[in-house]
Amino acid sequence: MSSNREIHLASRPQGWPTADNFRLVDTEVPSPGPGQIVVRNQFMSVDPYMRGRMNDVKSYVPPFALDVPLDGGAVGEVVAGEADGIRVGDTVLHGLGWREYALLDGRSARRVDPDVAPVSAYLSVLGMTGLTAYAGLLDVAAMQPGETVFVSGAAGAVGSMVGQIAKLRGAGRVVGSAGSPAKVERLTALGFDAAFDYHDGPVRDALKAAAPDGIDVYFDNVGGEHLEAAIGAMNLHGRAAICGMIAQYNSAEPPAAPRNLALVIGKRLTLRGFLVGDHGDLRDQFVTEVGGWLREGRLSYDETIVDGIENAPDAFLGLLRGENLGKMLVRL
Amino acid sequence: MSSNREIHLASRPQGWPTADNFRLVDTEVPSPGPGQIVVRNQFMSVDPYMRGRMNDVKSYVPPFALDVPLDGGAVGEVVAGEADGIRVGDTVLHGLGWREYALLDGRSARRVDPDVAPVSAYLSVLGMTGLTAYAGLLDVAAMQPGETVFVSGAAGAVGSMVGQIAKLRGAGRVVGSAGSPAKVERLTALGFDAAFDYHDGPVRDALKAAAPDGIDVYFDNVGGEHLEAAIGAMNLHGRAAICGMIAQYNSAEPPAAPRNLALVIGKRLTLRGFLVGDHGDLRDQFVTEVGGWLREGRLSYDETIVDGIENAPDAFLGLLRGENLGKMLVRL
Repeated sequence: MSSNREIHLASRPQGWPTADNFRLVDTEVPSPGPGQIVVRNQFMSVDPYMRGRMNDVKSYVPPFALDVPLDGGAVGEVVAGEADGIRVGDTVLHGLGWREYALLDGRSARRVDPDVAPVSAYLSVLGMTGLTAYAGLLDVAAMQPGETVFVSGAAGAVGSMVGQIAKLRGAGRVVGSAGSPAKVERLTALGFDAAFDYHDGPVRDALKAAAPDGIDVYFDNVGGEHLEAAIGAMNLHGRAAICGMIAQYNSAEPPAAPRNLALVIGKRLTLRGFLVGDHGDLRDQFVTEVGGWLREGRLSYDETIVDGIENAPDAFLGLLRGENLGKMLVRL
Repeated sequence: MSSNREIHLASRPQGWPTADNFRLVDTEVPSPGPGQIVVRNQFMSVDPYMRGRMNDVKSYVPPFALDVPLDGGAVGEVVAGEADGIRVGDTVLHGLGWREYALLDGRSARRVDPDVAPVSAYLSVLGMTGLTAYAGLLDVAAMQPGETVFVSGAAGAVGSMVGQIAKLRGAGRVVGSAGSPAKVERLTALGFDAAFDYHDGPVRDALKAAAPDGIDVYFDNVGGEHLEAAIGAMNLHGRAAICGMIAQYNSAEPPAAPRNLALVIGKRLTLRGFLVGDHGDLRDQFVTEVGGWLREGRLSYDETIVDGIENAPDAFLGLLRGENLGKMLVRL
């Protein structure tokens, strides 16, 4: 029997995680029982939200447990078992990443077509990442044609989709912030009207230069100074879709909060947090529309791929440091 | 010709306003031109939002100018002129308070019926104050029957309406905070299920005791610590209608901001600022529903009345210090 390797959470990080918080464990390839399948994972996703699950606090999803495999989005090929119309040889999307072989109920897997798109795309542009961008921009923030959109963390998996979808849906102007000159350059290539490196000075000043007439929609992946700057730049009736606040995930101290929050009253702003899981009703529309743009070559997506399960913790740590362009994935 | 007295803004307050920022000025009773009326004001409103207009900053309404009368809601009797169906002897509601006699276009006044309710009610329960509560609670926060509602500044003009309207519309539990034992007692008499004095300890702790199952709607009149506590206590999909942040209107330093703002993501919260002026479409429904509750004796309202235009600055300062129960008005 082949060996199976998986990553456990060895200890809970305080502040920034380190390699010591993870453990690579050798185990056996599982055997399927009735209604179960075994999937050889080809790609697994590492995502910012996983940092929150490493804390032992009550949240919208239970925290990761210690000394068992972590989990998260993964895609792979069924190598054993048969259930719910899924057979050996099928490619499926499921939630048991961080391991080379996954044992799961057939009902917990969704078959995807590797001929329509590379299998990794089902974890990025055609997966939760893409739907997060789509639902946050169009449903939560209700972007209208002609509006000015600002997205932070814009070179990341979600942010780069937000900017492109905004343009394709008729935004008047799209501005992105990112953390390096190379990322800023990439945003321009992706069709952003303006982009800036937030290390270059106060976000407020850069945003004012990039969107002199203010912004109507803010898609927040970062929080902190970015959110404060966005509130300051908002036009009347502006909307913020709050997707993430990566700036503070590793902060041991109470994070910076927007000191200008009272502006929401006079400007009649709406700040709304969301999770993609609430927007499954948009999935069909999303797949049709975004899939169409992909086929027509009107939408690009970046992936940063790290090889080997043993490097999954490093991929995750790199993600938190912003080392990825687009979606950070581990190829197993 | 009788004399007319009015209050000017003599200087812009830095932090807390003082009597020195105001000036009582003797002038003459104006004479109406074509299309104009002269109103002898009987009551004028002092409101927290006026503090913002004393600063020389761009906002949703222009700042008050120096050395001319302040303005704001007022109600009185037409003593001269005739315009747009308004005649001498009519009682009208208009926007030129802070003076004993007001000269205005007939189109800027709205006739009200002194037989339906005391004229002061058109500045409080049946006026902008009542509509603010009604629109914020039912439209902006979209309160549903059975939900738990928390309102800060609950013994104020808006807050006391919010709590009562919530109960009358079927809220499961209504909690209010206020700034004195007497106010807390009054809230209980008004039908609030629980009330606390925010001086007694951390708002977070008091709110947890008063709403152990969390809150679904927060109506914010205060900001600062109250808003942070409300975000912490919110249930999934909770909504905050942000009406005011009186805690920070006189702050010379950047105000405290909610350090737990990231909770909006996992809990899918919506924070929405609003101004009553955007909700005029609800006026007819509001007058019908709230007027009905008033006639049936199911809704009470408090007024704190100060006499004499010369005391209007004191009334305003007292309002900022929370010395009012219900609506603070000046009788002229």
